[in-house]
Amino acid sequence: MSDNNFDVVVIGGGPGGYVAAIRAAQLGLKTGLVEREHLGGICLNWGCIPTKALLRSADIYRTMQHAASYGLSAPGASFDLAAIVKRSRGVSAQLSAGVKGLLKKNKVTVFDGHGKLAGPQKDGWGKVVVDGKVPATLSAKHIILATGGRARVMPGFEPDGKFVWTYKEALVPDSMPKALLVIGSGAIGIEFASFFNALGANVTVVEMMDRVMPVEDEEISILARKQFEKQGMRILTGATVKGLRKSASNVSVQVEVGGKIEDIVVDRVISAIGVVANIENIGIEGTKVKVDRGHVVTNKWCETDEPGVYAIGDLTAPPWLAHKASHEGVICIEKIAGLKDVHPLENSKIPGCTYCHPQVASVGLSEKKAIEKGYQVKVGRFPFIGNGKAIALGEPEGLIKTIFDAKTGELLGAHMIGAEVTEMIQGYTIAKTLETTEAELMHTVFPHPTLSEMMHEAVLSAYGRAIHF
Amino acid sequence: MSDNNFDVVVIGGGPGGYVAAIRAAQLGLKTGLVEREHLGGICLNWGCIPTKALLRSADIYRTMQHAASYGLSAPGASFDLAAIVKRSRGVSAQLSAGVKGLLKKNKVTVFDGHGKLAGPQKDGWGKVVVDGKVPATLSAKHIILATGGRARVMPGFEPDGKFVWTYKEALVPDSMPKALLVIGSGAIGIEFASFFNALGANVTVVEMMDRVMPVEDEEISILARKQFEKQGMRILTGATVKGLRKSASNVSVQVEVGGKIEDIVVDRVISAIGVVANIENIGIEGTKVKVDRGHVVTNKWCETDEPGVYAIGDLTAPPWLAHKASHEGVICIEKIAGLKDVHPLENSKIPGCTYCHPQVASVGLSEKKAIEKGYQVKVGRFPFIGNGKAIALGEPEGLIKTIFDAKTGELLGAHMIGAEVTEMIQGYTIAKTLETTEAELMHTVFPHPTLSEMMHEAVLSAYGRAIHF
Repeated sequence: MSDNNFDVVVIGGGPGGYVAAIRAAQLGLKTGLVEREHLGGICLNWGCIPTKALLRSADIYRTMQHAASYGLSAPGASFDLAAIVKRSRGVSAQLSAGVKGLLKKNKVTVFDGHGKLAGPQKDGWGKVVVDGKVPATLSAKHIILATGGRARVMPGFEPDGKFVWTYKEALVPDSMPKALLVIGSGAIGIEFASFFNALGANVTVVEMMDRVMPVEDEEISILARKQFEKQGMRILTGATVKGLRKSASNVSVQVEVGGKIEDIVVDRVISAIGVVANIENIGIEGTKVKVDRGHVVTNKWCETDEPGVYAIGDLTAPPWLAHKASHEGVICIEKIAGLKDVHPLENSKIPGCTYCHPQVASVGLSEKKAIEKGYQVKVGRFPFIGNGKAIALGEPEGLIKTIFDAKTGELLGAHMIGAEVTEMIQGYTIAKTLETTEAELMHTVFPHPTLSEMMHEAVLSAYGRAIHF
Repeated sequence: MSDNNFDVVVIGGGPGGYVAAIRAAQLGLKTGLVEREHLGGICLNWGCIPTKALLRSADIYRTMQHAASYGLSAPGASFDLAAIVKRSRGVSAQLSAGVKGLLKKNKVTVFDGHGKLAGPQKDGWGKVVVDGKVPATLSAKHIILATGGRARVMPGFEPDGKFVWTYKEALVPDSMPKALLVIGSGAIGIEFASFFNALGANVTVVEMMDRVMPVEDEEISILARKQFEKQGMRILTGATVKGLRKSASNVSVQVEVGGKIEDIVVDRVISAIGVVANIENIGIEGTKVKVDRGHVVTNKWCETDEPGVYAIGDLTAPPWLAHKASHEGVICIEKIAGLKDVHPLENSKIPGCTYCHPQVASVGLSEKKAIEKGYQVKVGRFPFIGNGKAIALGEPEGLIKTIFDAKTGELLGAHMIGAEVTEMIQGYTIAKTLETTEAELMHTVFPHPTLSEMMHEAVLSAYGRAIHF
């Protein structure tokens, strides 16, 4: 095989792309990966990872404010925004270097540059053109598009590097905004709102839908809003931004709520209204690759309609989550390699996490969606205030909610808000993957004293058997 | 039924006892509970719960010491031991009151006093005598012994309220020991060692076995020791205490290590060499209740050899864990009530947690035990340093280890050390309860970025498929 002939070429080095490349190499496929900017993609460099680093600093700072309630004191507690940001960038840099090392170790050839398809397959070989410092043309039997997404931009709210930020600018603020307006209360918006609020900014969140975090179960949304407001955020739901006027030192945003327009003056605006797929300039024009509502269409094995061309991650249908992308990368490659025990992804088994304070995590159907789908449901609830470890931690606010099919006992959904729920949701996800019913979860011994005991109680509660409430 | 005639009388209000009583009441059984001291037992008043409260304060204090590494500063950080202890006592008091409320809500009649069996059943009724402010004699069809355990005392190391502590005195220290010697590196000993070390005490741990936390997997013990030593603890393994000499202001302990005796002078000694069952004065003499190695013998439904008499929790065979006790309480009652879907407890599915720093959690067989049992094993490992969230949290030290049966793919054991593992172990416990193999765990989508992704990687690793290492 010539040097630039590959079994697999992956375009895009985000979590979907690099995981696909490593898995391909593990399976003995000769693999190339084309990345135009950072290995690890948005997730690792401008998303999931650096935000977690910022939020960790904010969490510790918040806890220090309440030191007295733990028998401690931290009278001179303060933060250095530049140092917090520097740490966050360092974490991303370390992990991006780690991905580079993993690709090297696995003998994946990395090409720096912009990759695009160059027409359809011929004689079983497709072509990828790399536009970079060292231009190249690669031949590949299988080409995986993993070009990811970017922030959706609303007309009139284009990022300007000063007043209007997307996640990218918000990750490297040069100063602390005194007043901040966040447009959108999905995971990205609400995590930044949490971060800047914890550090003392006056935060207003504008959400178009009638509740915050609208993809979550309604009860969780309500509890989240209460907590955010208790922390001093102003939350406007059913609200839309109409326009924006910049002055020399600040910006005035026109927000419509309940038919009235309010002028909100802030230092900075974060626009977090969603993600659009990077479908431009990747060479899909003139191929059979289909696009629907801005996203590449694939079947359950991540195949596009163009032979030998696959797509994974944010480029494709939702949910736009890193772990969905990387799991698709594995599925796609294992199918290419002819492995037998490959299972297609089911959205109902993909958990979602938001690292605001308190944290939110869920998997499967919300109560409303389950009812809409025609299920008769049994719903269990257990509040953090009834849990010994939550009290011991000083984290008594939160809820775990489970939704079962009343007929079969199948766990349809689980929804959590409170301390450490992002680390706990995997238990319900394992249970859903194993198609568990309430009985096996009831028979499981959860260790004491843990927050996870509430996962047990929330199951017992659905059947009127909770002990501690 | 006369007022003092019950379907079920439980002797002992710890986690096994009160859970049994609540479950009995839920099932419509007329239930009484006899408790001589605190509702919630040792666990809630002098064990699991108040230690977690102390350790939470210590964790925050430790993090404050490292504020600079998070872009924060806490120049005047300090602690107030009395306030930390007061908070811990408050947490216990709140939860004990909660148990009282739950028993009342469930219409369980609570008797304050020391309960004991009064001879064997007659005509299907047993008797319990209550020795308290209001003496009483209760009749019951089913009597559940749940009298728990207490600290094992070594001759010469009797708690004296000043120099020599058990967990009880260590929970309410009147001043910070400058130098502390802890005998025993099981969960209780090592948690206190962690707490006092974090607050600045000079801590020596003496362990008779050749490694710390000897019930854990050997690799976990080794990593734990390294971390403890890095934090400044002195760890002596294969070491025995030979004697103790008290002076007016401190105490000298003779420790034998490697055939040599060393005199270690400290302010305080914590003896944490295990737990003995409270089998005395509970009326089992002259009944068919059997005792083996100090513990009441029961069958898989918690029945003793005496008709109508059951035993659960620390009074019975190991493991001596609160969640084992409460689960036994439920099993015992559900069997009494004639429920069909009752499963006996299997030790291999009971997780264990230790809340030292870093935390330790495990379920099932260690690698060594699995091999001893004749399994051919596949072992997976994933280190915290390879995980994005661990880096973002500033918690890069830890390991997740999985042990599979090479023939069937059954998950035999899982062993974890590092941040938040006590909340994560439930996922593997659910998996073990569902008798999962590696395949289902591989197919599970773990959310990103979480520590729990390591649970996935540790499974993949056992089969040579880990992505991030």
